Amino acid sequence: MSPVANYRSTTDHAELDRVLASAAGAAGAWAAGGADARAVALEGVADALEAGAGELVPVAARESSLPQGRLESELTRTVFQLRLFAEVLRDGRYLDVRIDHADPDWPMGAPRPDLRRYLQPIGPVLVFAASNFPFAFSVAGGDSASALAAGNPVVVKAHPGHPELSRLTGDIVSEALRRAEAPAGVFSVVYGQEAGVAAVQDRRIKAAGFTGSITGGRALFDLAHGRPEPIPFYGEMGSNNPVFVTLAAAQARAQEIAEGFIESFTLGAGQFCTKPGTLFVPAGSGMVEAIKQAGLGGVHGMLNRRIAEGFLSAAGDLRNHPEVEVLLSGPDSPDGPGPVVLATTAEAMLADPTALQSEVFGPASLVVEYHDLDQAVQVAGTYAGQLTAGIFGQDDCPVQDLLAVLTQIAGRVIWNQWPTGVSVTYAQHHGGPYPATTAVTSTSVGTAAINRFLRPVAYQNLPQHLLPAELQDENPLGLPQMIDGQ
Amino acid sequence: MSPVANYRSTTDHAELDRVLASAAGAAGAWAAGGADARAVALEGVADALEAGAGELVPVAARESSLPQGRLESELTRTVFQLRLFAEVLRDGRYLDVRIDHADPDWPMGAPRPDLRRYLQPIGPVLVFAASNFPFAFSVAGGDSASALAAGNPVVVKAHPGHPELSRLTGDIVSEALRRAEAPAGVFSVVYGQEAGVAAVQDRRIKAAGFTGSITGGRALFDLAHGRPEPIPFYGEMGSNNPVFVTLAAAQARAQEIAEGFIESFTLGAGQFCTKPGTLFVPAGSGMVEAIKQAGLGGVHGMLNRRIAEGFLSAAGDLRNHPEVEVLLSGPDSPDGPGPVVLATTAEAMLADPTALQSEVFGPASLVVEYHDLDQAVQVAGTYAGQLTAGIFGQDDCPVQDLLAVLTQIAGRVIWNQWPTGVSVTYAQHHGGPYPATTAVTSTSVGTAAINRFLRPVAYQNLPQHLLPAELQDENPLGLPQMIDGQ
Repeated sequence: MSPVANYRSTTDHAELDRVLASAAGAAGAWAAGGADARAVALEGVADALEAGAGELVPVAARESSLPQGRLESELTRTVFQLRLFAEVLRDGRYLDVRIDHADPDWPMGAPRPDLRRYLQPIGPVLVFAASNFPFAFSVAGGDSASALAAGNPVVVKAHPGHPELSRLTGDIVSEALRRAEAPAGVFSVVYGQEAGVAAVQDRRIKAAGFTGSITGGRALFDLAHGRPEPIPFYGEMGSNNPVFVTLAAAQARAQEIAEGFIESFTLGAGQFCTKPGTLFVPAGSGMVEAIKQAGLGGVHGMLNRRIAEGFLSAAGDLRNHPEVEVLLSGPDSPDGPGPVVLATTAEAMLADPTALQSEVFGPASLVVEYHDLDQAVQVAGTYAGQLTAGIFGQDDCPVQDLLAVLTQIAGRVIWNQWPTGVSVTYAQHHGGPYPATTAVTSTSVGTAAINRFLRPVAYQNLPQHLLPAELQDENPLGLPQMIDGQ
Repeated sequence: MSPVANYRSTTDHAELDRVLASAAGAAGAWAAGGADARAVALEGVADALEAGAGELVPVAARESSLPQGRLESELTRTVFQLRLFAEVLRDGRYLDVRIDHADPDWPMGAPRPDLRRYLQPIGPVLVFAASNFPFAFSVAGGDSASALAAGNPVVVKAHPGHPELSRLTGDIVSEALRRAEAPAGVFSVVYGQEAGVAAVQDRRIKAAGFTGSITGGRALFDLAHGRPEPIPFYGEMGSNNPVFVTLAAAQARAQEIAEGFIESFTLGAGQFCTKPGTLFVPAGSGMVEAIKQAGLGGVHGMLNRRIAEGFLSAAGDLRNHPEVEVLLSGPDSPDGPGPVVLATTAEAMLADPTALQSEVFGPASLVVEYHDLDQAVQVAGTYAGQLTAGIFGQDDCPVQDLLAVLTQIAGRVIWNQWPTGVSVTYAQHHGGPYPATTAVTSTSVGTAAINRFLRPVAYQNLPQHLLPAELQDENPLGLPQMIDGQ
């Protein structure tokens, strides 16, 4: 387990100022270089990371305690999402090009001028890296990929949990961008909390992405919105990801569900924002017994000592709740604490939702016995915003009311699958009402994530030669265009 | 001129609580009723407002001092935008439906589950009405139209400048919605600053729209983001809307530009967020003489005493600036202060941009002499965020650098037209960097405004019969769907 403050150096004020100045200086050229050039550059970064796997993965394993196989597949995902954003750039729909020709008879009572609008880069983006995905949500992770793809310079605030990996990844990304003739300053990594706090308040930063704890995310959100010029702050924070098992599902496949549950909540030592933190099971259905029977093995070590201590403290608070008992516990390993399944009742949760719905980051989950679907609906309605919520049911289960409530509280609603393992796709949504995220209208995973770092600009009555190529009648870039609303 | 505090009653705490509870209670049914039903309801509201013109316009004229003709055309625009959002609802692209079928060979290194995503209503929306558009940005204005269209209940905080019109409009809207069988509580109007401040902090409100001053907007923005559960706050605030005249344009058509300038900045007694507050003219080009020659008549009275006093104070501050002189002034009318054209130089503005770029809400504008395009580009770069920026030029003017800077500072860039008169269209963008708006990624005018009040939800692995109709393979609603990225 690496100590949390293992980084060798922090970025001082003068260096941060140079980084931000060069990011601001790179914005115009990176945006103007065009989407095709950015697609090639992103693919160059993807290739370089892939080629660097042999060097990157061992450093990641040493700094994060995560298993090599997991890190290899995380790197594959990281490389894939860079390539997927290259595809988004070539597709061009993300620009949302709209052209309205002048119309003297426009029925609003006044002639319509020629108006053309598309989405442009928002400006330099600050990305706060996460600890638990040293590749996919860190230096070269999703926020960096979407912000770069959108045409923005990126400044990553490295996570102190993997400083050497951050530096190594940053060097590989920067070198690949240099080879792709991206402007100097388009990508940098800075180190230390002070640098992050200063950068999020700097006028040259125009948006920020964050993945981490509610406490840290809210503090940075407050700074971003307290600026003289507030900026969008996209924080992906905590989630408890409740999963409900119906009586029919429990009767049909208690053992399968119990095993899947244990596999999902202990995956990565429970250090996922989508870990199923609560499993609602019908009282007397045999689910509790099936979970007991499935048993708990050990898990690998946690990311660092601070996170392990946080886990032990939060899990301890939950275990010491008067209405909670221990259902199962797994062995501690030399590298970290063992997993635990706790148990309570829906009545207890209704009486004290704040305590029993708080996130425990690490290998713990709470099994909650409920009596009937009405009670399940009632307790689901007490949840704050969640990244995911799920149901294990049979096709004929009358779960419509439960689904409706889960849709209100969560960004992704899942049927008969576990929430861990967030696929990077066109239709993915990784977000949700606060405190799952600070920006309920946006996603941090999937192709729609690019929209967070774009702003619309409209041009009125410009002659063709002064219009951006994206908006010209000739459509030299061959983009999808909405013309006169069609 | 109506006194500002002319309203007969304010909404007390108990009444506000009833309004918010009924808005929250209406959310599910209004959303579930479907887009077609909402389109019919919006058209019913449009028809009712149109039918009520004879009653509405005289009240608006009495409370706002705005001329009858202007109010009639504003009501036409208001009715039009309700109908345009009905069209958006029937079109269905606003839902951004995306369907990814399961794919065992998805190249991210793990099978892709079946994922389906679309945009759902965000929840009850609070709309702060503006004073200067008693129809188009007030009770039944753009924010109400887009929020209702998106499927959200709306609570309007009435502007105290037109309380009787607010009540009358609210009654007409509510009655039309009732006739359309919309759920009770889907639309309400509340009165008084205290009610607005309480409502923006109430957990039942899930987003807010605002049109008004920077001071008021920022205070409410801070409250919305300081909540335990922060919400999106879409504030459209102040703008100075700089317009640059090139030397070639001045030489070709000084008189036409001068007359257009005076017409635009005095329109509505200068009480538009898109009023051209600054006109940059080439020194020695004859533009100053042309403006003097065009002359200034009087303007109609201002909206209320508070706004007139604010205008006199802000215009006085600008006139008393040591580097500013009076170029032209028009006569006061019995109803309000006369218009004024002030003058300064680009050097003076570069030396004191804060003072010389501050918005004066009312019939004043500042003419700034500049020496060459390089200086114009330099001074343009000193502006904070603007709703619009414009150029009057000839087709061969080398304005590329100036255009690039204006694109950075403004949401809409205009060529050879004046910024007043914001057309409601598909490609319109009424927004811009702070302080023009608090949310640079969104617009308050045009069909894209509906996106502010929607949130994405993804469904993973759901059987067809449990999916919303929007996401079913059969596509019973006939919606545009992105399927597997295509």
